[in-house]
Amino acid sequence: MRFAERLHEGIISQGTALCVGIDPARERMAPVLLSAAGDDPYTMLTLFGRTVLDAVAPLVPIVKPQIAYFERYGLEGLRALETILQYARDKGVLIVLDAKRGDIGETSSAYAKAYLADDGPYGPLVDCLTVNPYMGPDAVEPFADAALKSGKGLFLLVRTSNPGAAHLQNLIADGKPVYAHVASLVDSFAQRQSGLAGYSDIGAVVGATLGSEARELRALLPRSIFLVPGVGAQGGSLDVVRDCFDTNGMGAIVSSSRAITYPAGEHATLDDLSEAIRQAALNTIKDIAR
Amino acid sequence: MRFAERLHEGIISQGTALCVGIDPARERMAPVLLSAAGDDPYTMLTLFGRTVLDAVAPLVPIVKPQIAYFERYGLEGLRALETILQYARDKGVLIVLDAKRGDIGETSSAYAKAYLADDGPYGPLVDCLTVNPYMGPDAVEPFADAALKSGKGLFLLVRTSNPGAAHLQNLIADGKPVYAHVASLVDSFAQRQSGLAGYSDIGAVVGATLGSEARELRALLPRSIFLVPGVGAQGGSLDVVRDCFDTNGMGAIVSSSRAITYPAGEHATLDDLSEAIRQAALNTIKDIAR
Repeated sequence: MRFAERLHEGIISQGTALCVGIDPARERMAPVLLSAAGDDPYTMLTLFGRTVLDAVAPLVPIVKPQIAYFERYGLEGLRALETILQYARDKGVLIVLDAKRGDIGETSSAYAKAYLADDGPYGPLVDCLTVNPYMGPDAVEPFADAALKSGKGLFLLVRTSNPGAAHLQNLIADGKPVYAHVASLVDSFAQRQSGLAGYSDIGAVVGATLGSEARELRALLPRSIFLVPGVGAQGGSLDVVRDCFDTNGMGAIVSSSRAITYPAGEHATLDDLSEAIRQAALNTIKDIAR
Repeated sequence: MRFAERLHEGIISQGTALCVGIDPARERMAPVLLSAAGDDPYTMLTLFGRTVLDAVAPLVPIVKPQIAYFERYGLEGLRALETILQYARDKGVLIVLDAKRGDIGETSSAYAKAYLADDGPYGPLVDCLTVNPYMGPDAVEPFADAALKSGKGLFLLVRTSNPGAAHLQNLIADGKPVYAHVASLVDSFAQRQSGLAGYSDIGAVVGATLGSEARELRALLPRSIFLVPGVGAQGGSLDVVRDCFDTNGMGAIVSSSRAITYPAGEHATLDDLSEAIRQAALNTIKDIAR
C-alpha cells in the first residue's frame, strides 16, 4: 500500500487526523523525566520518545519526529532517533520525518537515498519526509522519484506556520503570493499520480496560523494531503484547520507537538507524565473533531 | 578572530578565493580509491576526504563538505564527517559546512546548537554554515545569534546555482525578483555588524550560473561575502564570478567540487589521484585569477 493509502487507513481506524510531533528539547522536559534519564543524551531522547509513543501511538495514525532535536546531540542524538523510529514502527504508527531537506539535484538525491530509499539508513523506518522546495523543481525531483518508487510520501513546504513566514512566502508575484506559486509546483508533482484513486503521496505543509488562504490552497491543491502544523503552542486556529480538510473530513493531518508532549502540571512518576500526555492528546483530538 | 577575518587572512595567505567542495559520491569515485576503501562506507568516505584534503588544504583557504553525502550513510556517514572535519581542522583550512538548514525559530535553535555552538557536537569543527532563509527572518535569527556569538559565519541562500533556481527565486514581486527580497533580508542581518571593519560574518550564496544579476546583488549586499557555487561541473561562468568580487578582488569565495575532486583520466595509485586533484585545483585557481 502506498503512503496516502496507509495514512487514509490509519485516520479511519484511529478516528482522528492528529499527528503528534516529537521534539525532544531538554529545557522543556518534566523534572521526573530528566531525573530518570540522567545526563546521557541518548537516554534522555529515547526515554522522552518512548514515553510519548507509549501514550499516543494507540490514539493517532502518525507521529512526526523533528530531526533537528536529534542532530543537536550529534551521533548520540541520531542513534536515539533510530531507536525511536524503530520503536514507533514496532507500535504500528506511521512516521513523517520532519527534516525540511532540499538542495541541488545531485545533493537532493543523496538526501533521498538516506531518508526514502528502501536500502538507505532511514528509508525502512520512515513513511514520509518534509522537503523544502524553494530551490526549485529540480531540487524536489529526486525526493519525488524516491518517494513514489518506494511507496512513501512527501510534504513540501508551501506556507509555513512561523510568525515570519509571510515575509517571503506572501510576496505577490504575477498577481498571486509566492506560496501559491509553490502550490502549483507541488501540484505538478502530485499530478504524476493522477490515475490513482484518492490523494497523491505528494502533500503540502500549510500552517494553521494562516488566515483565509487555507481555503484557497485547498482549491489549488486538490490532490495533496495537507500537513497542518502550528496548532496548540504556536497559536494556530481551528477555523483554519477546518478549511484544510475536504468535504469528507479527509485530506489533512493536524500536527501538534509541545501542547501535547509537554503537558502542564506536576507529574510525580513517569506513568503520571504518560497519562498527562495521553489526556492532552485526547483533548486535542476532541478539539479537532469539533 | 571572527569568521570573516579568518577567511580574509586565509585568502591573502593562499592567494586565492577558491573553496573546494567535498561531496563524496561512490558512483563518481576513481577505481583506485574504491578498491583501497573496500565496502565499508566509513572507510570510503574518510579515504576520499583525506585524499582531497591532502591535495587541496595546502592550496586553498576553505573547504565545503556537503553533509547530504554523509547523512546518506546514516551514523557511519556522520562519524566519517566528524573525522574529516577534524582532519581539515588539523590541517588549518577553514570549513563551511553545507547543510542548508532552516526551520521555525525553536527548531532552527536546535540546529544552531548542533552546528555553530561552541559546546555543540559540530560547532568546534565548523567555521561557517549554509542556511535556507525562505521560511523568513525568525528562521534565520537563531543561526545569526549563534554564529555571531561564537565568531562563526553563515552563508544564506539568496540565488542558488541549480537549473530550476529561477522557478521561484526569480519571480518578480513589488518590482524586483524574490531573490532580491531575500538579499534585503540577508543585509538586515549583516547590518548588525555595521560597526566592524571589513565584511560581515553573514554572507550570501550567489550562484555562478546567474547572468547580470550578480552585479546587482553585489550592490545590494555590500557587507556580505558571497559563496559562489556552480563553477566547473555545473557550468557556471567566470564572468559572473568576477561580478561577485569587490574592486579589491575580495568579498567572495568560489566553490567547485566535482571538477576538482573527481579529476578525469586514469589513476594508477592514490598518490596519482591526489596529484590529479592537486593539478585540477591549481588549474581552477589559475582560471579564477584571470
